[in-house]
Amino acid sequence: MKLNCDMGESYGAWEIGADQDVMPWVNQANIACGFHAGDPDVMAQTIQLAIKYNVQIGAHPGYNDKQGFGRRSIAHCYAQITHLVCYQVGALSALCALQGKPLEYVKPHGALYNDMMADIRIFAAIIDALVSFKTPLALMILARPDLQAYHKIAEQAGIKLILEAFADRAYDETGHLVARSQEGAVLNSAELIKKQVKQLIDRQTVSTRNGKEIKLKVDTICVHGDNAAGILLVKQLQHLLTQFRLTDK
Amino acid sequence: MKLNCDMGESYGAWEIGADQDVMPWVNQANIACGFHAGDPDVMAQTIQLAIKYNVQIGAHPGYNDKQGFGRRSIAHCYAQITHLVCYQVGALSALCALQGKPLEYVKPHGALYNDMMADIRIFAAIIDALVSFKTPLALMILARPDLQAYHKIAEQAGIKLILEAFADRAYDETGHLVARSQEGAVLNSAELIKKQVKQLIDRQTVSTRNGKEIKLKVDTICVHGDNAAGILLVKQLQHLLTQFRLTDK
Amino acid sequence: MKLNCDMGESYGAWEIGADQDVMPWVNQANIACGFHAGDPDVMAQTIQLAIKYNVQIGAHPGYNDKQGFGRRSIAHCYAQITHLVCYQVGALSALCALQGKPLEYVKPHGALYNDMMADIRIFAAIIDALVSFKTPLALMILARPDLQAYHKIAEQAGIKLILEAFADRAYDETGHLVARSQEGAVLNSAELIKKQVKQLIDRQTVSTRNGKEIKLKVDTICVHGDNAAGILLVKQLQHLLTQFRLTDK
Amino acid sequence: MKLNCDMGESYGAWEIGADQDVMPWVNQANIACGFHAGDPDVMAQTIQLAIKYNVQIGAHPGYNDKQGFGRRSIAHCYAQITHLVCYQVGALSALCALQGKPLEYVKPHGALYNDMMADIRIFAAIIDALVSFKTPLALMILARPDLQAYHKIAEQAGIKLILEAFADRAYDETGHLVARSQEGAVLNSAELIKKQVKQLIDRQTVSTRNGKEIKLKVDTICVHGDNAAGILLVKQLQHLLTQFRLTDK
Repeated sequence: MKLNCDMGESYGAWEIGADQDVMPWVNQANIACGFHAGDPDVMAQTIQLAIKYNVQIGAHPGYNDKQGFGRRSIAHCYAQITHLVCYQVGALSALCALQGKPLEYVKPHGALYNDMMADIRIFAAIIDALVSFKTPLALMILARPDLQAYHKIAEQAGIKLILEAFADRAYDETGHLVARSQEGAVLNSAELIKKQVKQLIDRQTVSTRNGKEIKLKVDTICVHGDNAAGILLVKQLQHLLTQFRLTDK
Repeated sequence: MKLNCDMGESYGAWEIGADQDVMPWVNQANIACGFHAGDPDVMAQTIQLAIKYNVQIGAHPGYNDKQGFGRRSIAHCYAQITHLVCYQVGALSALCALQGKPLEYVKPHGALYNDMMADIRIFAAIIDALVSFKTPLALMILARPDLQAYHKIAEQAGIKLILEAFADRAYDETGHLVARSQEGAVLNSAELIKKQVKQLIDRQTVSTRNGKEIKLKVDTICVHGDNAAGILLVKQLQHLLTQFRLTDK
Repeated sequence: MKLNCDMGESYGAWEIGADQDVMPWVNQANIACGFHAGDPDVMAQTIQLAIKYNVQIGAHPGYNDKQGFGRRSIAHCYAQITHLVCYQVGALSALCALQGKPLEYVKPHGALYNDMMADIRIFAAIIDALVSFKTPLALMILARPDLQAYHKIAEQAGIKLILEAFADRAYDETGHLVARSQEGAVLNSAELIKKQVKQLIDRQTVSTRNGKEIKLKVDTICVHGDNAAGILLVKQLQHLLTQFRLTDK
Repeated sequence: MKLNCDMGESYGAWEIGADQDVMPWVNQANIACGFHAGDPDVMAQTIQLAIKYNVQIGAHPGYNDKQGFGRRSIAHCYAQITHLVCYQVGALSALCALQGKPLEYVKPHGALYNDMMADIRIFAAIIDALVSFKTPLALMILARPDLQAYHKIAEQAGIKLILEAFADRAYDETGHLVARSQEGAVLNSAELIKKQVKQLIDRQTVSTRNGKEIKLKVDTICVHGDNAAGILLVKQLQHLLTQFRLTDK
């Protein structure tokens, strides 16, 4: 079990996130690729930071929409999705090679991530982009009970899937995230978050908002580190994971 | 001796150039990489067209300035030049791999090309970007008599240089291009252009505007195909080259 | 009855449309405002051209999406729509004032136009942007039988509506345009287009694809002039209108 | 004597500056116009904040270069400068009118500001943009002893100039700012800054780095409020000014 975090989302003179403070405590850095956030210089700096703390690097491609930070869906045909992802992943891959660090996986950002989980043909278009890379790239998607068709496509393409859960999001009885528009969608207490993560580690389950416990196979947990409280929490979650890894051995 | 041409400079709904008509007659397509022109879809279409006519593909990175079409110099520190080029070349390289076609060389565009020929540290910064690619990438630069220092840097980095001349530009007595601001900088007659190319092929020399004949080792000639007359000329130049190749053998 | 046409949709070095050829034959130029197309220089040149042929100027604001040419819907809250339109109309208004020509109306572009006709709150948000301009600005929208609520909002705000029909689009029995995805949505023959325009002029009606004739009050007809055939047709439609005006007097 | 400060330089999800904290203590807010920073929503929010604290609003147009934050010079012909400024000022003017607040002046940003002070034809091109606005707009430029030609152009155009000094920059013996590349260009101590401002208020002079005291007529002082220390200093400078105004009466 790992912790992943969106990184490198600054742009030119604009800084966002606390990459310096969070990087030491995560295992996987999802680095923005210049379409929704980031630019070649920010990408290079973030790669350097990931190298310093021996963190795995993933590409974090998004829709071409800086003003909307990639959070707004923009209609693309499937071939366009493939090109969009291929372009951004290729760019980050080259910047990684420049520093001698491999790019290991891809996690789509924001609206592109949501669209991928809502439309399997968008997922397939992203898979199409990944198969042509010489270095094998895994694809990080949302852990859900109903992903058989996703797994089948990935398997046929020879692409490994990394399944992620969210540390701070409530789950409904189908194993989907509760929509942000609904009350209680976001777990606001550090205790609840740590409990959810601990349960994911210990029992490979998540408790839904209705109290049901459902099985959820998860490889990595998405965390955020935008403020001091967030960073402290990431640190505590990493200690939980480390403890589990030690015990597990 | 080859013909190279800038390609893939359309953008979204905006079309520029006559790639369909020119591609059959050139040997090397310099494909824009989305910063001064082009976008992931235009890049993919242009790669497909190059494959159809078996044309070598080069990346054509430029400054991030669509409104100025990459023709305006924008100050960058050297590390930024390296990142800028690495990003764009990586993106095109991935889109080439998607279609199973290798990317073979890099030719900077517009103001970046001029800045590279005016400041050897910018050239060195571009070389820095190219060495990290697994596939060996050559760098296309302007053929000039005074490039010893450029050759030295490239050699040390293991990067092959491709030297290009311009079919339609006048040369001064130092072997530099006559600045566009000066009269007679551009050869407007098809006869003069063909004569200049023929002389480059036959005698490896160029006649300066003052009538002097100077040695100019050239691997490729840059042509444009923006209109019917231009396309006809490219076709005629390609016939000249083909004839030479046949005779040469 | 007037003819309106989208203009000024070039961008930097990229030219689109045939503004020089179409401008003499239309009455209203919808000038792009730099978000989906156009830039300050293209806007200034297009204003100059409209002045030369004494054509009314309208602002043609769109979503901020050059790669998609404003044809893709992008989610905005209503206040954002107001700001987006206000910004673009203000910019064009100032460039008109620079040349001493008034800006007279606003016609949203592409996806923003469609969204305005599908969601009356977007229409209201656009009206909100227009009321603050000192010069009274009319708003051009799609003529439809079911616009009572639209008229009411405009009237309360003191904004005049200009109702437009499309010369080359088929209408369904409700007076809406047949969706482009359906067969027969676009009238491909010049004869059919001229017949539709003549009927709009003579009888203020449109014949639906099912042969029904429905009333359609129309102030202006949208035309396109992208190629030689299109420009000829615009010229012929303008002759139709001129004849009608002469007869009418 | 007033205090002016650059404001509204956030962009989409990226926040920069501490507008909320600084606005109460300045007299003039230079609001970015969407080219180097800002977007229609950020502009509207900043206008609202200026209204709340009764601060004068100026447009802060820059080169179209978000990645470089408008700090890099980009070659434009003079007509392009006029269009660029006209566009941005028109956009902000309309957003001000939307909230019933007048736009009062224009202060170019970053590289455009520097280029204006280095090339009087760029200054003249900006003046050209301002004369067409119905509301009289003043132009804020750098106070220097050698501005006779600038004053003459402005006077002939009927544009009022606002002369600004920098609170935290050292002056050389010609009354120009010491270049940032030189040591001592920026006054780092709050005491030195307050002393320079006090002297500007009390004696209308500035002490050069060589100890010479030169006359400098100044209408406004440029301040920054990026961090807690900066904001405290702005507050103290505003107290200095208020005291002076009270005494002066």
